[in-house]
Amino acid sequence: MSSVHPSTRIHRVPAAAPDDLSGLERLVATGALDPSGILAILGKTEGNGCVNDFTRGFATRALADFLRARIGNERAADVVLVMSGGTEGALSPHWLVFERVEHGEGDAFPDGSLAIGTSVTRDVLPEEIGRAAQMDVVRSGVVDAMAAAGITSVDDVHFVQVKCPLLTSARIVAAAARGRSCAVSDTLKSMGLSRGASALGIALALGELDAAAIFESAVGRDMNLFSRRASTSAGIELMGHEILVLGMSRGWRGPLAVGHAVMRDAIDAAAVQACLQGLGVPDGAGFEALLAKAEASRTGLVRGARHTMNDDSDISATRHARAFVGGMLAGLTGTTELFVSGGAEHQGPDGGGPVAVIVRRNAS
Amino acid sequence: MSSVHPSTRIHRVPAAAPDDLSGLERLVATGALDPSGILAILGKTEGNGCVNDFTRGFATRALADFLRARIGNERAADVVLVMSGGTEGALSPHWLVFERVEHGEGDAFPDGSLAIGTSVTRDVLPEEIGRAAQMDVVRSGVVDAMAAAGITSVDDVHFVQVKCPLLTSARIVAAAARGRSCAVSDTLKSMGLSRGASALGIALALGELDAAAIFESAVGRDMNLFSRRASTSAGIELMGHEILVLGMSRGWRGPLAVGHAVMRDAIDAAAVQACLQGLGVPDGAGFEALLAKAEASRTGLVRGARHTMNDDSDISATRHARAFVGGMLAGLTGTTELFVSGGAEHQGPDGGGPVAVIVRRNAS
Amino acid sequence: MSSVHPSTRIHRVPAAAPDDLSGLERLVATGALDPSGILAILGKTEGNGCVNDFTRGFATRALADFLRARIGNERAADVVLVMSGGTEGALSPHWLVFERVEHGEGDAFPDGSLAIGTSVTRDVLPEEIGRAAQMDVVRSGVVDAMAAAGITSVDDVHFVQVKCPLLTSARIVAAAARGRSCAVSDTLKSMGLSRGASALGIALALGELDAAAIFESAVGRDMNLFSRRASTSAGIELMGHEILVLGMSRGWRGPLAVGHAVMRDAIDAAAVQACLQGLGVPDGAGFEALLAKAEASRTGLVRGARHTMNDDSDISATRHARAFVGGMLAGLTGTTELFVSGGAEHQGPDGGGPVAVIVRRNAS
Amino acid sequence: MSSVHPSTRIHRVPAAAPDDLSGLERLVATGALDPSGILAILGKTEGNGCVNDFTRGFATRALADFLRARIGNERAADVVLVMSGGTEGALSPHWLVFERVEHGEGDAFPDGSLAIGTSVTRDVLPEEIGRAAQMDVVRSGVVDAMAAAGITSVDDVHFVQVKCPLLTSARIVAAAARGRSCAVSDTLKSMGLSRGASALGIALALGELDAAAIFESAVGRDMNLFSRRASTSAGIELMGHEILVLGMSRGWRGPLAVGHAVMRDAIDAAAVQACLQGLGVPDGAGFEALLAKAEASRTGLVRGARHTMNDDSDISATRHARAFVGGMLAGLTGTTELFVSGGAEHQGPDGGGPVAVIVRRNAS
Repeated sequence: MSSVHPSTRIHRVPAAAPDDLSGLERLVATGALDPSGILAILGKTEGNGCVNDFTRGFATRALADFLRARIGNERAADVVLVMSGGTEGALSPHWLVFERVEHGEGDAFPDGSLAIGTSVTRDVLPEEIGRAAQMDVVRSGVVDAMAAAGITSVDDVHFVQVKCPLLTSARIVAAAARGRSCAVSDTLKSMGLSRGASALGIALALGELDAAAIFESAVGRDMNLFSRRASTSAGIELMGHEILVLGMSRGWRGPLAVGHAVMRDAIDAAAVQACLQGLGVPDGAGFEALLAKAEASRTGLVRGARHTMNDDSDISATRHARAFVGGMLAGLTGTTELFVSGGAEHQGPDGGGPVAVIVRRNAS
Repeated sequence: MSSVHPSTRIHRVPAAAPDDLSGLERLVATGALDPSGILAILGKTEGNGCVNDFTRGFATRALADFLRARIGNERAADVVLVMSGGTEGALSPHWLVFERVEHGEGDAFPDGSLAIGTSVTRDVLPEEIGRAAQMDVVRSGVVDAMAAAGITSVDDVHFVQVKCPLLTSARIVAAAARGRSCAVSDTLKSMGLSRGASALGIALALGELDAAAIFESAVGRDMNLFSRRASTSAGIELMGHEILVLGMSRGWRGPLAVGHAVMRDAIDAAAVQACLQGLGVPDGAGFEALLAKAEASRTGLVRGARHTMNDDSDISATRHARAFVGGMLAGLTGTTELFVSGGAEHQGPDGGGPVAVIVRRNAS
Repeated sequence: MSSVHPSTRIHRVPAAAPDDLSGLERLVATGALDPSGILAILGKTEGNGCVNDFTRGFATRALADFLRARIGNERAADVVLVMSGGTEGALSPHWLVFERVEHGEGDAFPDGSLAIGTSVTRDVLPEEIGRAAQMDVVRSGVVDAMAAAGITSVDDVHFVQVKCPLLTSARIVAAAARGRSCAVSDTLKSMGLSRGASALGIALALGELDAAAIFESAVGRDMNLFSRRASTSAGIELMGHEILVLGMSRGWRGPLAVGHAVMRDAIDAAAVQACLQGLGVPDGAGFEALLAKAEASRTGLVRGARHTMNDDSDISATRHARAFVGGMLAGLTGTTELFVSGGAEHQGPDGGGPVAVIVRRNAS
Repeated sequence: MSSVHPSTRIHRVPAAAPDDLSGLERLVATGALDPSGILAILGKTEGNGCVNDFTRGFATRALADFLRARIGNERAADVVLVMSGGTEGALSPHWLVFERVEHGEGDAFPDGSLAIGTSVTRDVLPEEIGRAAQMDVVRSGVVDAMAAAGITSVDDVHFVQVKCPLLTSARIVAAAARGRSCAVSDTLKSMGLSRGASALGIALALGELDAAAIFESAVGRDMNLFSRRASTSAGIELMGHEILVLGMSRGWRGPLAVGHAVMRDAIDAAAVQACLQGLGVPDGAGFEALLAKAEASRTGLVRGARHTMNDDSDISATRHARAFVGGMLAGLTGTTELFVSGGAEHQGPDGGGPVAVIVRRNAS
């Protein structure tokens, strides 16, 4: 009997524009999606994914309006909204909706089912971004999100998605007016520091790294320090952090399962293929969703061959990396609706990145 | 006895900049490359691959200086130089040198060996670009290049690489001054028409299409007309066409072989994998080189999911497509030194493109 | 006695982001702006001003929410919202609010005062964009807006601002599904055709051109046909046209006046300086607002010297032109809050563009 | 009698491409230019002006070939070649050739005539870029160039143009391999540090700043420290510095004169207009050449209004600034052939920049 256990429903919905929620509306209309169960919505939006990407804010405004109208202001505020800008190459704009069904759907599986939980942290100050203070805020937030999912062992966590803030010229000036100096004056660069500090906060929460081993000065510098399950994404539209934990739990029910892999470089198809096989979907049948990080290696090399991403002043390296790794992953999964997010600082090894795959299993 | 038969040597050489020929110089110094046998040099250079990409001209100037100093002006002029701009994503700038060794190297293989041949066409006028005149010029040039390679059957041709001209504002104005109207006024768009007309010229030469079936108005419009073995690339630095034919011939010797595939869309890894397997290199051992075309589908879709390449006013669709398809192909081959060229108009089906793979076989 | 005559108030308000209306809210709070009198809001937003510029839609959504909350849905729908993307160079994002004060403010001036009027046209079909149908829709809309302003002579009109639609891949596909072919398949190019057809519609309404003289095929081609007072701007967020007419009328009161000039090329500072002097503000005192069009000349030349805007595949020509002409105009006016809009097809001569200047006069 | 005194000839020559020297060739053919007198060639080339701008190297290669063929390798190596990438907006690609005529041309003027001198410094190491070592190298080089021009008082110097190196990924890696850390890992940012350190070196040489007042840590940070006559430009194609000094000297003859101004911000037309008037060319008659620096203010403001240049991840701020300030200056001078160079770190106040104007006076 599964009725006292929660289960997860996941909805992958195409978006025709940053404010196009017609797909979500159709799901609600047909009863396939119950808005009151939505814990998180992840979106790939079609901006540049960098500092002046307003498609994230535009999408967030549309989603917030959608949620408020359906579940009220208070509960809408609890939904984690992580918009990742940048659908370079043939990546396709879409929403990933994570819904918690309270009175369980589906069967029990021996190794449990996909469990999800969320949390929202306090706002940080501009001068905290990219520094120890931010790491600690995120570490604590991940612990909260695990608790919300009912996941007790860090080994059962397969992916942690964090939306974190960035610096703008205005925020730097505001900090300076209070006599505070920010970690960096380059606003594009601030996105990397924020993603990096957030990833290290995740590594601390998951026990992948020891707090004593991480000095603040390591953020954005010592790329040997990294989490294998972190995915962080910076946006202009918030100053706090929104956190989503994906794991496996025997307290949850239903056919969905999650696994993860770590790409060691931008062309590490083997690692992802092994993960797909481990989950029993080598041929893509049962495939539900993929979340991955992509980045340009700082060495300027991929398996010894030079890349030009870091020296390109026309297109930022994050855009190049999303397109390229997106192509590699689409070749493996047979779909372009992939949540590939740029900037993998301290998320997997330099030039590589973590990947999570969600699949639908057949009932036992 | 193989000494009366030619064979092909192929050299894949990294380039640190558009004018970096230090790798070629080292090969000459060690005797691995005999400049007098060079038939063609293909280069991936790190510009934008579009109208104002001067890395192609820069590389061409450096290569021409290199060749003239070693084999004299006259013979240097016969070497086909095809520079394809754009190493988006982690694609790596490099040279592919095709050398014909006159007094045969290596064994005879039952199905023959890689055979290469080149030709150079007359300059066309700006107003001929993208029109029937250009198609016919290219068709005739392909026949010449096949003859040079000693390939008699069109079925033995696996790939035809053509470098073709483009329109600039100045060229359009010059034509107008003579009372002639060019096929298009958008210079970026002219690259597509030139590539398209060249590809249709190849299709005519290879008997893939019938001259009676191709109206001039089909260029850039009727994407059901295409060659399965054409790869064309436009550059500002020439007004004629430089043509390289790759095929198999029992008149040639040595371990190299070429095969081809046609990707039906931007994520058609299966087609390429089948080609690799057919050539006996499923795991990348023996892999020598890959040449491919990439493009954004005009439908705006990849397997039903929307892509944003055609609506992006910041990054041209050709750049997106090279990065994305480049990632997919690098995942399959394990290297980023791939000759992925953008703009596959009439080269494979809409959104897909032809691929050639060159491998080194073990002696029988 | 001026109380039965309307007058215009204009508010130039900085925007910190596409959805930043805090400046407008402050004006309402202090009573400086009465929302019920707003006829039009023009905005310079910080996107790329091209096809995939979602800052316009984001701003429009925020402004619509703002207006609906204050004056109700029905009246909010009548407010003309013209968002022009692109604040290249040092151009500054801002709102220009045009408010009609019913029971007149300020004195009567012998040559009248700034009069404003608006209209909204029917939606057009994708296949009507850039063609005669669109011209006629706009012509008729300008007549309506003049009537709304109480301007009876076309000679009293100094500027007509039109927001017009553009083609997206989806719209082209939709038309094709109905068996209709659009005027162009390049979505960036469709913006130019829509702006051009709209400008010719304005020229027809103002009697600058004769309907018999304009063939549909002239749109985007015969640049000798142009309006001297048209400014048109394309956006993804509408399929109709929103029209604002600026003129002088003795039926209106108050210190504001408008004049116009036509720049003959991108560096025609003299024409604008003459306009400023004619309005009595050579030194910038009394300056209120400037609206201008900028574009790259099709000849590829400015006073005989080559420009590279049309051959640049990294930055679209409209962006270059806004930055450059914006700098020229900012040098003359001493402010970067200028409504400089790109793409001046049929708006002023090739490479030039119309300019309107609004000033505050001292009472006589 | 003027025959024992040198004079300067300046040639402003359009370029149709980075390697187009046909204009120079025509001048040589007609005798208007004597190659043996060329001290320096400045070029505006049409790349992005940032790290991966190969138009500078392409132009440099073409110019070096041109010079070597005419004046021999040894003397060609002494010619200062300063290529500044970026002709944003309507700025026009062109060459500025500075020729020293040994046995004087033209009359003596009471306040002297334009005097020119050049020098080339030693190569610096990657880790010296942006640091005190680079400042000192440039300081010393400016002293040498003044001596070469026969200018004895720093007050007679009106402009110092320096071409300085930048960091690439490969150079940073090379330094790291030697155990040295570079000043910055962001290659685009390294251009700013190199320009800044070079400008401070100029300020030291001209006595504008005191060595005791400049700490290494001020480079790129304390923007209150600046030269009023420095213009520095970074390029990938050298590791040393090439220096050109422009001044006035009674030892020189001829109609040319130079003056300078300092723009306090990006719209400071008044400062440039005052300079033009001071030189007696308020209306552009007699105008020969203008050299200027442009940059985005770090405050994010121009006269209190926000600009978006520093938050734009699609177009680098240097490109925005060149386009915008270029437009302002073209409006004043009536030509788009202006040597406007981006990145004015420590060259004029934050957001502003030095300007030099060269004019042709009528004989007294």
